[in-house]
Amino acid sequence: MSEPHELVVTWTSADRPGLVHAVTGACAHVGGNLTECQQFTSTDTGNFFIRLQVESVSSRADLESAVSELAGKYDATFHVDVLGRPVRTLILASKAPHCLSHLLFNRDAGRLPIDVVQVMANHPDLADLVAFYEVPFRWQKVNRESKASFEQEVLHTVSDLDVELVVLARYMQILSPELCEQLSGRCINIHHSFLPGFKGANPYRQAHSRGVKLIGATAHFVTVDLDEGPIIEQRVQRVDHSQTVAQLTAVGQDTESATLDEAVRLFAEHRTFLDGRRTVVLR
Amino acid sequence: MSEPHELVVTWTSADRPGLVHAVTGACAHVGGNLTECQQFTSTDTGNFFIRLQVESVSSRADLESAVSELAGKYDATFHVDVLGRPVRTLILASKAPHCLSHLLFNRDAGRLPIDVVQVMANHPDLADLVAFYEVPFRWQKVNRESKASFEQEVLHTVSDLDVELVVLARYMQILSPELCEQLSGRCINIHHSFLPGFKGANPYRQAHSRGVKLIGATAHFVTVDLDEGPIIEQRVQRVDHSQTVAQLTAVGQDTESATLDEAVRLFAEHRTFLDGRRTVVLR
Amino acid sequence: MSEPHELVVTWTSADRPGLVHAVTGACAHVGGNLTECQQFTSTDTGNFFIRLQVESVSSRADLESAVSELAGKYDATFHVDVLGRPVRTLILASKAPHCLSHLLFNRDAGRLPIDVVQVMANHPDLADLVAFYEVPFRWQKVNRESKASFEQEVLHTVSDLDVELVVLARYMQILSPELCEQLSGRCINIHHSFLPGFKGANPYRQAHSRGVKLIGATAHFVTVDLDEGPIIEQRVQRVDHSQTVAQLTAVGQDTESATLDEAVRLFAEHRTFLDGRRTVVLR
Amino acid sequence: MSEPHELVVTWTSADRPGLVHAVTGACAHVGGNLTECQQFTSTDTGNFFIRLQVESVSSRADLESAVSELAGKYDATFHVDVLGRPVRTLILASKAPHCLSHLLFNRDAGRLPIDVVQVMANHPDLADLVAFYEVPFRWQKVNRESKASFEQEVLHTVSDLDVELVVLARYMQILSPELCEQLSGRCINIHHSFLPGFKGANPYRQAHSRGVKLIGATAHFVTVDLDEGPIIEQRVQRVDHSQTVAQLTAVGQDTESATLDEAVRLFAEHRTFLDGRRTVVLR
Repeated sequence: MSEPHELVVTWTSADRPGLVHAVTGACAHVGGNLTECQQFTSTDTGNFFIRLQVESVSSRADLESAVSELAGKYDATFHVDVLGRPVRTLILASKAPHCLSHLLFNRDAGRLPIDVVQVMANHPDLADLVAFYEVPFRWQKVNRESKASFEQEVLHTVSDLDVELVVLARYMQILSPELCEQLSGRCINIHHSFLPGFKGANPYRQAHSRGVKLIGATAHFVTVDLDEGPIIEQRVQRVDHSQTVAQLTAVGQDTESATLDEAVRLFAEHRTFLDGRRTVVLR
Repeated sequence: MSEPHELVVTWTSADRPGLVHAVTGACAHVGGNLTECQQFTSTDTGNFFIRLQVESVSSRADLESAVSELAGKYDATFHVDVLGRPVRTLILASKAPHCLSHLLFNRDAGRLPIDVVQVMANHPDLADLVAFYEVPFRWQKVNRESKASFEQEVLHTVSDLDVELVVLARYMQILSPELCEQLSGRCINIHHSFLPGFKGANPYRQAHSRGVKLIGATAHFVTVDLDEGPIIEQRVQRVDHSQTVAQLTAVGQDTESATLDEAVRLFAEHRTFLDGRRTVVLR
Repeated sequence: MSEPHELVVTWTSADRPGLVHAVTGACAHVGGNLTECQQFTSTDTGNFFIRLQVESVSSRADLESAVSELAGKYDATFHVDVLGRPVRTLILASKAPHCLSHLLFNRDAGRLPIDVVQVMANHPDLADLVAFYEVPFRWQKVNRESKASFEQEVLHTVSDLDVELVVLARYMQILSPELCEQLSGRCINIHHSFLPGFKGANPYRQAHSRGVKLIGATAHFVTVDLDEGPIIEQRVQRVDHSQTVAQLTAVGQDTESATLDEAVRLFAEHRTFLDGRRTVVLR
Repeated sequence: MSEPHELVVTWTSADRPGLVHAVTGACAHVGGNLTECQQFTSTDTGNFFIRLQVESVSSRADLESAVSELAGKYDATFHVDVLGRPVRTLILASKAPHCLSHLLFNRDAGRLPIDVVQVMANHPDLADLVAFYEVPFRWQKVNRESKASFEQEVLHTVSDLDVELVVLARYMQILSPELCEQLSGRCINIHHSFLPGFKGANPYRQAHSRGVKLIGATAHFVTVDLDEGPIIEQRVQRVDHSQTVAQLTAVGQDTESATLDEAVRLFAEHRTFLDGRRTVVLR
């Protein structure tokens, strides 16, 4: 028996009466005390989601085995982890530094429970920034010929380094459907968002020409439907007619950085769940 | 046995291992299915708070009796109610219509589960507004001599009409310590808030002269410490140097209305709990 | 010569060196003192916009004649008015009370410089609300047969009552292209807005099923392109997965009310200018 | 004669009729075309403020001489500069990296028109961060004995390097009244802000124990009155009861970084003016 420590349990299954009682019972069974418990039942899909933080003297393995036994009965998927354990993260980037820099700074500041095991890019520009934060960096040109080999590298890295989360930090390439599929539920993208939305090239120019008053960003899980995956977090900032396209872009990039940080934090704290086409976030 | 309906359970006690399991067990026992469950353990006070929504074919009385039995063992305070039952509410007002009008409009629009059983004021100005919303209105001048009798009236009204919530909708009188005591935990006040705070008269004039960039409002439970009770909700809006004292006041009043609405909604949905000097809000 | 009072001047023309100097000179010429001056030059269209507040002992007519003379030389459009003069406003509504109620309340509270000369609706539901605020109300069923006659009524009302602003306060009918044309630049609409936008029916249901985290509203000038006119104001509020379609709708309606109020205030204070497909707002 | 370029003019004087006309006339005189013009007359102090952006083929010196001649007549203070010229900036820091890192990143990203000529600190911790951004760094322990000599160093640096702006980026020392006086109007500080405000030590702990729902930051000019100088910018973020003191601190630091960035940008773009105890910000 060790010192008390904190564990985190997540569970997804079809809803049924008595589920909270049952799952919390498994925790109580190994002597755990709940310090956080959030739950949600989706009336849309009939799914039940729960996230527990458990203070316990039992090991992670003991709690996992108790939850696992129960999960078998309910056909549930579940995860048991040590609270705050850094999630092994691969970041894909391109030339723009803003999202990458914020992620690395906040990891260093102890605000993001992630361990960035590798940064991969399709341009060399961000090498110095990544080196400053002492993270391994690899880059390779990505074009029609080399795209498949780059994506193979991504998959090998995910596999070799036990990567749990892939973050597209303004990686400006479209992932192949195969890669989207392989990374399903563990790959987060960020993109700018406007009201109304704009199709096509130069969205900031379009936003400027329509005189939008708000500029935002959406962080979402990557799916084959480009920019249409389940939304994790959204934020906006005010702008006005006097701001140039360059200034709107700067505001948009700030918003992207903050929104992606928050989405990564929510994932790394095991607070995000997929519920059909949408995300349940248990804060 | 009736049709399934939704009940809401709230519970406060000292924290102990197994509490979520135990309370959800009482619900399961009477055949209830949880549709919402929020919980919080305060490391500051050692208190445990839980709010459950339960879909059930059992009656409110059956669930209450199951929870009550459990509460005895844990020395807990609890409440069982029909979800969405309008909370019987007394509003105290003075001359300013903004908060009162918003509350009555939103009640009518079906957005606030409250039943406004009476409006009392120390001025006659709001009689027409209250009449439009078909709520009983009484007013009485309040000065040093008549204050005690007005407060007696308030207490009689609370008692006679089974009032569960008293809202001070810009009622510009300080309640006596005795009345604060009597209404403890069921009386909500609203006041403007600034960063930094300003003491003394004419706060909007002071805010103007300091050139504040944000104006806010705080809704809180009333305690003997004037304007220092546990905070339920806070909001702000941006302002700038060009706005006059009158314009700052208008922004402040809008913010007060929205903030008070939200605080009343949170109370009426049984989402607010007292945790020493602060409020736990289970959304 | 009368007591000093405040006038407001707006001016739009092609940009040219010396314009601010020239327009402020016209004000100085009649002994006016500027208390506010906002200006914007659009690099997109080459248009120049200016709004002045002038404290003056001269009459409105004297200032207008000075500005008019100048405007001739620069092929400018301009407007001179008494600051704070209530703008004669016609509101079109349907069944939903939220936007209408906010406008009328804020007008009464002295926060919106508008004079609501008439409310017209395609349903009788809002008659009592409008009567409370002592505004004339007319309604008429609008269907394929009667739409043209209703729109004729609108145009007659605009003409007979010297209406300067038409507000669509959740008037759920599409205006004919002819009416849009007639009311160009003086008709404001409000609609909900999401990131991303949703096409088709039941937008709140779609927003719910996509799990959006922000719900917003856009107030814009009406043009033939439905919901695509120049944007005046946009606002958002946070929501989450646990909110039902009904709750999202309530949040959306609150946002609509606040956004429309602000847009109407900006128009009534002569702060909105058209610049091609977008709006310049001089605050 | 050179290519057209953009200049910026700021002017403060007692208000008088005809001032906008006169100042814009000086610009027109040297063939300048206004691209931005913001103005404000303070009814509190009787001061008049104007900021102009001027596209011109004349040199900065020519425009300055035209404005200077006029300023003599009106007893005005004024400044003429090349638009976007980086403002020479000295940053004082301590151990906390968040504000410093954001300033340096945004300068590098081309979003802040500042030239950071030196970072000085009372601890060595931030040396690597500053080196990464290739800015000179000096540190020196500051205690009762060495404080005066550190402040002398600051003044020498300001003088030797022609520093125009001093930023206290979480420099946790109180400046002496003499230094405050010397840096009056060109030294910006950032501090956390709450509603209500908290006096004394451990403000985040106090904020936690009061259950505040918003945490903010205020950027202000430094004056002898600690944390009471004229406010430049304020921002807030939402928090709730479940966040620990450490989490509230992280939110507070994020808000500080963003607020200080914005204040520095406003100063460096010559948009901030002192109006007695407050700041006029011409955006």
